[in-house]
Amino acid sequence: MPAKTKVGIIGCGAIGGIHADGYSKCADAELAAVADILPEKAEALAAQHGVGLATANYKDILADPSIGAVSVCTPNDLHCPMTLDALRAGKHVLCEKPIALNLTQAKKMHAEAKRRERLLAIGVVNRFNTYVELMKEAIASGQIGEVYHTRFVFKNYRCIPGLGGWFTTKARSGGGVMIDWGVHFLDLVFYCLGGPKPQAVSGVAHAQLARDIRKYAYLDMWAGPPDPKGTCDVEEYVSGLLRTDGPTVAFEGAWAQNIDDTSMFIEFLGDKGGIRADYGGGFTLYTDKDGVLYQRKATAPAREMYVDEIVSFIDCARTGKASRADIEHVLPSQAVIDAFYKSAATGREVKIRQ
Amino acid sequence: MPAKTKVGIIGCGAIGGIHADGYSKCADAELAAVADILPEKAEALAAQHGVGLATANYKDILADPSIGAVSVCTPNDLHCPMTLDALRAGKHVLCEKPIALNLTQAKKMHAEAKRRERLLAIGVVNRFNTYVELMKEAIASGQIGEVYHTRFVFKNYRCIPGLGGWFTTKARSGGGVMIDWGVHFLDLVFYCLGGPKPQAVSGVAHAQLARDIRKYAYLDMWAGPPDPKGTCDVEEYVSGLLRTDGPTVAFEGAWAQNIDDTSMFIEFLGDKGGIRADYGGGFTLYTDKDGVLYQRKATAPAREMYVDEIVSFIDCARTGKASRADIEHVLPSQAVIDAFYKSAATGREVKIRQ
Amino acid sequence: MPAKTKVGIIGCGAIGGIHADGYSKCADAELAAVADILPEKAEALAAQHGVGLATANYKDILADPSIGAVSVCTPNDLHCPMTLDALRAGKHVLCEKPIALNLTQAKKMHAEAKRRERLLAIGVVNRFNTYVELMKEAIASGQIGEVYHTRFVFKNYRCIPGLGGWFTTKARSGGGVMIDWGVHFLDLVFYCLGGPKPQAVSGVAHAQLARDIRKYAYLDMWAGPPDPKGTCDVEEYVSGLLRTDGPTVAFEGAWAQNIDDTSMFIEFLGDKGGIRADYGGGFTLYTDKDGVLYQRKATAPAREMYVDEIVSFIDCARTGKASRADIEHVLPSQAVIDAFYKSAATGREVKIRQ
Amino acid sequence: MPAKTKVGIIGCGAIGGIHADGYSKCADAELAAVADILPEKAEALAAQHGVGLATANYKDILADPSIGAVSVCTPNDLHCPMTLDALRAGKHVLCEKPIALNLTQAKKMHAEAKRRERLLAIGVVNRFNTYVELMKEAIASGQIGEVYHTRFVFKNYRCIPGLGGWFTTKARSGGGVMIDWGVHFLDLVFYCLGGPKPQAVSGVAHAQLARDIRKYAYLDMWAGPPDPKGTCDVEEYVSGLLRTDGPTVAFEGAWAQNIDDTSMFIEFLGDKGGIRADYGGGFTLYTDKDGVLYQRKATAPAREMYVDEIVSFIDCARTGKASRADIEHVLPSQAVIDAFYKSAATGREVKIRQ
Repeated sequence: MPAKTKVGIIGCGAIGGIHADGYSKCADAELAAVADILPEKAEALAAQHGVGLATANYKDILADPSIGAVSVCTPNDLHCPMTLDALRAGKHVLCEKPIALNLTQAKKMHAEAKRRERLLAIGVVNRFNTYVELMKEAIASGQIGEVYHTRFVFKNYRCIPGLGGWFTTKARSGGGVMIDWGVHFLDLVFYCLGGPKPQAVSGVAHAQLARDIRKYAYLDMWAGPPDPKGTCDVEEYVSGLLRTDGPTVAFEGAWAQNIDDTSMFIEFLGDKGGIRADYGGGFTLYTDKDGVLYQRKATAPAREMYVDEIVSFIDCARTGKASRADIEHVLPSQAVIDAFYKSAATGREVKIRQ
Repeated sequence: MPAKTKVGIIGCGAIGGIHADGYSKCADAELAAVADILPEKAEALAAQHGVGLATANYKDILADPSIGAVSVCTPNDLHCPMTLDALRAGKHVLCEKPIALNLTQAKKMHAEAKRRERLLAIGVVNRFNTYVELMKEAIASGQIGEVYHTRFVFKNYRCIPGLGGWFTTKARSGGGVMIDWGVHFLDLVFYCLGGPKPQAVSGVAHAQLARDIRKYAYLDMWAGPPDPKGTCDVEEYVSGLLRTDGPTVAFEGAWAQNIDDTSMFIEFLGDKGGIRADYGGGFTLYTDKDGVLYQRKATAPAREMYVDEIVSFIDCARTGKASRADIEHVLPSQAVIDAFYKSAATGREVKIRQ
Repeated sequence: MPAKTKVGIIGCGAIGGIHADGYSKCADAELAAVADILPEKAEALAAQHGVGLATANYKDILADPSIGAVSVCTPNDLHCPMTLDALRAGKHVLCEKPIALNLTQAKKMHAEAKRRERLLAIGVVNRFNTYVELMKEAIASGQIGEVYHTRFVFKNYRCIPGLGGWFTTKARSGGGVMIDWGVHFLDLVFYCLGGPKPQAVSGVAHAQLARDIRKYAYLDMWAGPPDPKGTCDVEEYVSGLLRTDGPTVAFEGAWAQNIDDTSMFIEFLGDKGGIRADYGGGFTLYTDKDGVLYQRKATAPAREMYVDEIVSFIDCARTGKASRADIEHVLPSQAVIDAFYKSAATGREVKIRQ
Repeated sequence: MPAKTKVGIIGCGAIGGIHADGYSKCADAELAAVADILPEKAEALAAQHGVGLATANYKDILADPSIGAVSVCTPNDLHCPMTLDALRAGKHVLCEKPIALNLTQAKKMHAEAKRRERLLAIGVVNRFNTYVELMKEAIASGQIGEVYHTRFVFKNYRCIPGLGGWFTTKARSGGGVMIDWGVHFLDLVFYCLGGPKPQAVSGVAHAQLARDIRKYAYLDMWAGPPDPKGTCDVEEYVSGLLRTDGPTVAFEGAWAQNIDDTSMFIEFLGDKGGIRADYGGGFTLYTDKDGVLYQRKATAPAREMYVDEIVSFIDCARTGKASRADIEHVLPSQAVIDAFYKSAATGREVKIRQ
């Protein structure tokens, strides 16, 4: 085992920068190369972190045998082909969420990782957030009894990202708010509940507010300014009901809606108590005893979840330890997303077979 | 046509008292008789309103040929048999919500009303609330464009009524929070949207918090104190997704849950704007123009909706005018409730055929 | 000591009814007489509780030597003369809040009670609410450290009571929202803090929204319908800052304001933690330890505080025990109210000398 | 008049960077020099904007006769001496808020600007925010009638900045949350109300939560990490009541408090309506007509208020037009702050003489 694992990053946008920051804080990793189709973005990131190689061609990274691991931080449609290339080049891979455009691609990636005996971790970064661990433990230890229903909400008033760009182009993103935001919540729910098996989902997806990109009123827009000549063929509003072999799960999400309500939370309803988690940090525990109702909330400084994710990735890659972000743990939520989109398209409940 | 229509009330609980108050304010009606299986309740209501006949046997009212109309204000399981008896005795009937225990009973009541050429109105009292009319008009006039999704929430932290009594006994009530509270919201949505045709529903119903009546912690309890020896076999939590030939509809409801959240509202999402109604009064209209986002809320004094409901019932009964509370307008929501319970019991989406 | 203390109630409005209910649940009391200037109100209350004497002249009650205690439940301007009469007739008195129209009257009542060696309790009913006791204990035991600031808010959007009637007529009420609602909060703060000595207050009082009674828009109105020919010469909005020999105290109140905000709460800010109490029941405790911030809320079923108030009154009257509602504990808040109105009238801070 | 006004910035921290960005977007200005006591900060900012001169000595900028205007973006204690130096060197000055440590310094600066016939603008940037202009117009046009009371709240749960550094050292900052956050709100209120004359203030200021810097629990901290060996001798909590020749004004503010409440808003209470402004953007207008209560909210994309502030400064400096940010408009709020601190220190209301 080398003193440090040399690492490359493919894709130097905002999330690529966060990975770079993580590697710089990881004692066992050395960021050795960065790639972006726009050379100036690769060069800027390289300059910032003192990285030796900046290239417009990610295959330059894969061709370097001294590099042991890579982060894939490109748009969703490139996750599958680049991850496959990296695995075939013998690299361990940390691929950003969502896994890919759909379950078929995801399974191909999973199979390739197994075949090559490489770690393929997915960027389900909330699994490395302190409060999530505390919630998971509270549930596992029976503090809220048997969980019979879960609900998650990821809604904003006006928050379509990069309207007209790759985020809103289905061929590049795989979908809208469900695959972009919903995937985080779904993964959290599955993680905290210890992996119930999804069975069927009934969902609806609406793409209404940005049919004419020019007429979409907004207050701010992340992921770049709107492109009036671009495409928006993905949903900005979803609602659904999921059945599992454990609790039932209801969800609603909106990148945008004509109601001024911004809500990001998860509720776990148990027969002895309940938990409501604010997405991003903190949760309230509801219990009762002898007829008195209690609420308890603890808030701790946010740990650096991105750093912990990177440290865990490098540790598991180096030692062969099992990773909590291994693609096999994330396949179920990709299966739900595929089934959700099929349900929304066909207007009926869809069974999930894995 | 007599100077005034003589009226009887069957069932002298809280809602029976409200009907009595309504008739006393209706110029064309005269409250002539009241019945309750508990004679002292009938007598008290009679004394309060100066009513000639107080009886423990509702058939005494039906046998009086001078009485032209009756209100049925008894527990849900009695709605169908008493309404059928009243129609057969030639009375116009205002039957409280829900119509009955299930759609089969409801259709039987509808058929009998047609056969006897009597008015059978249901107590969908929100249809007589001023702000509901304003919302309905706002939607009909296109102010929020095409409505593509509707959502209604009827949730409380600790609010199971009369635990152990008829409210929580399925054979007497037909169900829990869905048939008791949900029916009001469902009717409002159908009324405001101009009657879309329901097609399929996927729902879940949970009965968890009062499995042991003694252990249920609560802050207050309406509809009587808990009966620790009574029955609770109805759901206190529901969630569902309804497909119609118009908008999709999501809903969640709780008489009780282990999350301290009391929310009672309806959202109409349109492509040009949105409406969020606080249940009971007032709504906010969300629109945008030239890139600026607007919110507008109007709140008017609550009209006496119960009085207006009674006045409308008597007016339609006397003149033969169509009633907006006619049972035929309420059958679709009863059909949804039946399908919802079937979906919850079978764990799969259920198609609705009317 | 007689088996039961015979009691009379003077004033048979809503609050008089609540006292009657309390006495009926008090094992050591027997409600023997009720008086109201409107004979039908006295008779109705007497009928409901099986009371022997119903009279339009309260002096009939005072003249009955078998009656040992009375409740004074009349409008504020009658508190002082009726209480003095009752004390002089040798009765123990439970007088509703506020003590009287002003501090001068209050001191006269206090002096008379001392002279006659009778108990004069004031209807500071929140002192008999379970959660208040828990808060008081949490503060006394040092859980939030030293309290340096307290804030209380009693605001509604549209809630002027009985507009045009005695509530809004200064000569009959002594003032508006400050003396009617503020007095409850002020008493709670003083009680929970263990009686700090008030030193100075700077306040403002505004009477703006009902200058023309006909034009005041409202949603509902308690304490009777508006009287367009009546008087409104009291404030509906207040704000103030109170200095004591302990914590500083800020407050704001509104029977009505042109902002849709209904807030009723008290905040205790300590150097080790804080408490926010929802008026009426429940409070949240904020603390921190080792860098983690905690919130804890406990909610218990509302105890019957009016019953407990009555039981305590009768117990102290019979046994001579000290009462937590004794007028001497309530004089400081009356002193603050007097100084507040003086500050508002003169536009400058007013020192409080007791 | 030169084609462009050459400009220098003194102080290259976060706010200095915002000024640099503003000048770079101002057609009539050219950023020619930057100074910071830490040379690397000056150099970084110069590099980013292609500025010719980066210096550790601000007097280098003042000595350059080609430079016509400067921004003073240093800690509060340096505002006065550096502004005086700049005015004496013949520069127009845009000095960040607050004006200075106290009113005495502020008046000296005002006098020097008059003597030198230079523009001295203060960084009251909210005066350049679109929604503020809309509110000011709504008030001026009588939409809410006569404003009788105003209230502003600027509170956070855990938000002391740079604990132990200059922000919390009175000799360098002049005070805590009142002079840092309160000054913005006070200026907004005075601006929107058209400049009422302050007359007296009664206030309290508490410095409790960071007496031991090591024990202060927080979630995040802006303006740099805590310095456990530093000083914290400023207040983190304030409350006060201000009298003017127009409306009364109440306020409360907290950098930190043991209550989890983050609120930043201003309320204008008028006899015909009300306004509640969310600090930073958007406001709701409350009115009523014919007994119906209305609320209206408009939200527009945030204009670049810092750019508009800079553009206005340069325009007024070049043309001699009156500036809405001229120090003379900001002196009244500095007078209030001085009187507030005096009131808090002496425990009594303080008259304001200007």
